Amino acid sequence: MSERLELQTESTSNTGFAPGWYTIAASKEVGSKPKPFLLNGLPIVTFRDSSGQSVALLDRCAHRNAPLSAGRIIDGNIQCHYHGWQFDGAGSCKAVPGLCGEPDHAARRVPSFACRDSQGWVWVYSEADVQPDSEPYEIPFADHPGYFTVRERLEMPGPLDAVAENALDVPHTAFVHAGLFRKNKDRQQIEVVIRALDGGAEAQFIGEQRPEGLAGRILAPQGGEVFHWDRFLLPCIAQVEYRLSDRNHIIATTALTPRTPTVTDLFATVAVRVPIPNAILRAVVKPLAMRILRQDMEILRRQTEQVARFGGEQFASTEIDVLGLRIKKLLREASSGRGSTAQEERRIKMLV
Amino acid sequence: MSERLELQTESTSNTGFAPGWYTIAASKEVGSKPKPFLLNGLPIVTFRDSSGQSVALLDRCAHRNAPLSAGRIIDGNIQCHYHGWQFDGAGSCKAVPGLCGEPDHAARRVPSFACRDSQGWVWVYSEADVQPDSEPYEIPFADHPGYFTVRERLEMPGPLDAVAENALDVPHTAFVHAGLFRKNKDRQQIEVVIRALDGGAEAQFIGEQRPEGLAGRILAPQGGEVFHWDRFLLPCIAQVEYRLSDRNHIIATTALTPRTPTVTDLFATVAVRVPIPNAILRAVVKPLAMRILRQDMEILRRQTEQVARFGGEQFASTEIDVLGLRIKKLLREASSGRGSTAQEERRIKMLV
Amino acid sequence: MSERLELQTESTSNTGFAPGWYTIAASKEVGSKPKPFLLNGLPIVTFRDSSGQSVALLDRCAHRNAPLSAGRIIDGNIQCHYHGWQFDGAGSCKAVPGLCGEPDHAARRVPSFACRDSQGWVWVYSEADVQPDSEPYEIPFADHPGYFTVRERLEMPGPLDAVAENALDVPHTAFVHAGLFRKNKDRQQIEVVIRALDGGAEAQFIGEQRPEGLAGRILAPQGGEVFHWDRFLLPCIAQVEYRLSDRNHIIATTALTPRTPTVTDLFATVAVRVPIPNAILRAVVKPLAMRILRQDMEILRRQTEQVARFGGEQFASTEIDVLGLRIKKLLREASSGRGSTAQEERRIKMLV
Repeated sequence: MSERLELQTESTSNTGFAPGWYTIAASKEVGSKPKPFLLNGLPIVTFRDSSGQSVALLDRCAHRNAPLSAGRIIDGNIQCHYHGWQFDGAGSCKAVPGLCGEPDHAARRVPSFACRDSQGWVWVYSEADVQPDSEPYEIPFADHPGYFTVRERLEMPGPLDAVAENALDVPHTAFVHAGLFRKNKDRQQIEVVIRALDGGAEAQFIGEQRPEGLAGRILAPQGGEVFHWDRFLLPCIAQVEYRLSDRNHIIATTALTPRTPTVTDLFATVAVRVPIPNAILRAVVKPLAMRILRQDMEILRRQTEQVARFGGEQFASTEIDVLGLRIKKLLREASSGRGSTAQEERRIKMLV
Repeated sequence: MSERLELQTESTSNTGFAPGWYTIAASKEVGSKPKPFLLNGLPIVTFRDSSGQSVALLDRCAHRNAPLSAGRIIDGNIQCHYHGWQFDGAGSCKAVPGLCGEPDHAARRVPSFACRDSQGWVWVYSEADVQPDSEPYEIPFADHPGYFTVRERLEMPGPLDAVAENALDVPHTAFVHAGLFRKNKDRQQIEVVIRALDGGAEAQFIGEQRPEGLAGRILAPQGGEVFHWDRFLLPCIAQVEYRLSDRNHIIATTALTPRTPTVTDLFATVAVRVPIPNAILRAVVKPLAMRILRQDMEILRRQTEQVARFGGEQFASTEIDVLGLRIKKLLREASSGRGSTAQEERRIKMLV
Repeated sequence: MSERLELQTESTSNTGFAPGWYTIAASKEVGSKPKPFLLNGLPIVTFRDSSGQSVALLDRCAHRNAPLSAGRIIDGNIQCHYHGWQFDGAGSCKAVPGLCGEPDHAARRVPSFACRDSQGWVWVYSEADVQPDSEPYEIPFADHPGYFTVRERLEMPGPLDAVAENALDVPHTAFVHAGLFRKNKDRQQIEVVIRALDGGAEAQFIGEQRPEGLAGRILAPQGGEVFHWDRFLLPCIAQVEYRLSDRNHIIATTALTPRTPTVTDLFATVAVRVPIPNAILRAVVKPLAMRILRQDMEILRRQTEQVARFGGEQFASTEIDVLGLRIKKLLREASSGRGSTAQEERRIKMLV
């Protein structure tokens, strides 16, 4: 029986890894000490070179494979702790202590990754030894005048596509976040328009009244119709935007970096413009966001564990899973090097 | 060398999984909260429906595969914690919150398992979506008038066949349980008759005097000849029965449920009729049984670890391993769907 | 990208396992209780037979595969804790309690390993049921008159070849052991002669002045030219020898025993002849050796972790990695049963 059940299971989880720019740390975390991280299972080390520029190398000495991140930075080069070999930000070997002769040699190079500081985050391009023809995603309204901006990072126990779907999913809010957003009663019918974006997808929610939960009451005490968009953008951006009037605007952008196949680092930038003093926002927005994220972590952990126990996903979707299947399709196509195939606009009804 | 040794090893461990009824919990453990368990690696959840009937479903929401056991019971349906989908005891989808339209749909079903309360235990049939043509095993003398009945559950660190052989094995008692049953000296020669039962096997021990160990002295202070049977019944019953006179009768029935390939849940029902007041039995039987079981757990843990280190079993048997090979054969045949092949009656001598 | 990088990685780590004598314990550790150990992943148990001779058997009872090391020694035989089977030092079955008839039988034998006490260590030959035509390696100068001898064992977190290379490597000392031996400044050029030995390889360092670090100052306060050899001898000996004058001689012999593919037991014997009182040596040599070994453990652990993360080694070597590639070649050839192919003598320059 267990065998038969497992055979039925389609492993829809393996969406692959889409090339592109990924956030790997806050800019202020990268300094004079090497900082290691995992990008899709690959150990990478980031540090600042002599000009203060953030750089990223494969975290493996070309010599005996010790992690360069266990070493230190000497004049902007990273020095391996084992035999003292040094590499510059481009991965060229600059020192082989004890050797008579030139240290630089093709076999002694360490792969390097394009690296940028942008809007408070350090971004790395996922392909080694490549000059990308794009720049990191620009987070809308981050640090704009009139906006209160919060940054937070968290380790989410799930694959990128599950974390992105969760971040952009409306129906779970009445259960996982019961009381904070929507409730599972007195539901109203709204319309959702789902459309393709360039390298992404968007769901627009039309006709929803300000939710009655705590989060809604704090951020829009006066009520009214909510304009609401959820967006996914390749390779790693999940974005939720709410507008009530000209005075109320919230846009939460999360950059999702796969650490391993089942752990995703989440780097959130929340920009808020509401008629509430910053001091009060400071006291409210972060604790509220963390409470929501911890609830999502818990259900993602359980989902991921159960998928692992069954050896893969076997999902049944309905039309109110508005972005989940599109996210998987976008990631699958991008990871296999195909361009996105056209997805037509759809309109559905949903009870919220 | 290690390679050669490993090649010699026959993996006789993989006896497979025999379909049938398995105990998964005490009846009193299953109530208004979902209770998860593993049956042969398969996550299943049990709960009581609106009529108080115990029911069992695959512990995986049809939607996004979250464990249903993380949810709660609403009017006898189980509600998933992630998006609030509800399923009845038969696995039909009864609610998809937010969806305009009927929730019930073939793709949204969760596999269900036949489930029974019987003699204090909850039993589940191992094949999903099947109405079994049998009922759970009836434990002899449980709660019979004149019998003192003890129930206990334990997690044994070994595969089902190793736990069953251990439970029904006489020679190890002089070593693993030294002092409690038999001793490794002044041995007497007895006769053992090994015969096939319908879907099982039995060993009858003839001519043994009351063992001198603590357990023997407590339960049969007057001594005399012991009538003793050990039985294995597919798929999961290991049973030890002792009779001394009409006044002394002990029958210990253990239902063995494979949780994983190397962990087996043991559900013991011990029915005792001896000329000793129940109050004294209460004080003695359970602690003694637990001491014996803990000693067995320890040696099973070591055996299982060592088999894993060598990548499989390589057993040498003698004629006094009276039931071990028959248990493996019965399980192999049942798990592969073959009926049991006839095993002839054998008589051997043993020193106890 | 990660895929491409991993494909480039050559797994040069798998040097195999060379047959021969391996140290498995200190002689004083083997007594009246069974002592288990792992040799290349294979569980073995050692104990003393009735004549006080150390013997070694596969740590798996022939009957139900319980570890014999969980049992005890009875009259020089090892008794299994499960059913009391007994085996002598040659692996023959001497008792099957309960069985009417002879216990000894070919199917009930346990593989045995040649075993010797030599120079304070117990050595085991890696092939079961073989009378080796060699004896364990004789450690030079151990317990010689005029020599102070220290023995120590340690568990090193790396494969045998990485631990051996590390033990015999000069360039890492300026970094991993900064301040104890050499420094990464004011380097002098020396000559290194690398030559083949019978079943091994040797590097001779010519022209080095006494290192300025702590270890050098203690052991050779008067300075002068150091005569220095590093040696590897199949299957498991790494040896470092220093001579300053007739009055200063240090020879550190480590026997390396692979426990698992990534953990190596190190058994060190350090023989020292220096014009320093033994009481002072006792206070200095062992703490200094342990400090050095702990530093090596740390970098080996990091190297081994990183190699595992990348699924194999990808090393780039230079001419000052004088013995590393030869060690790998010797181990590969010995493990595959080939004799060592001739390696010509090489002379290189190195800055120390």
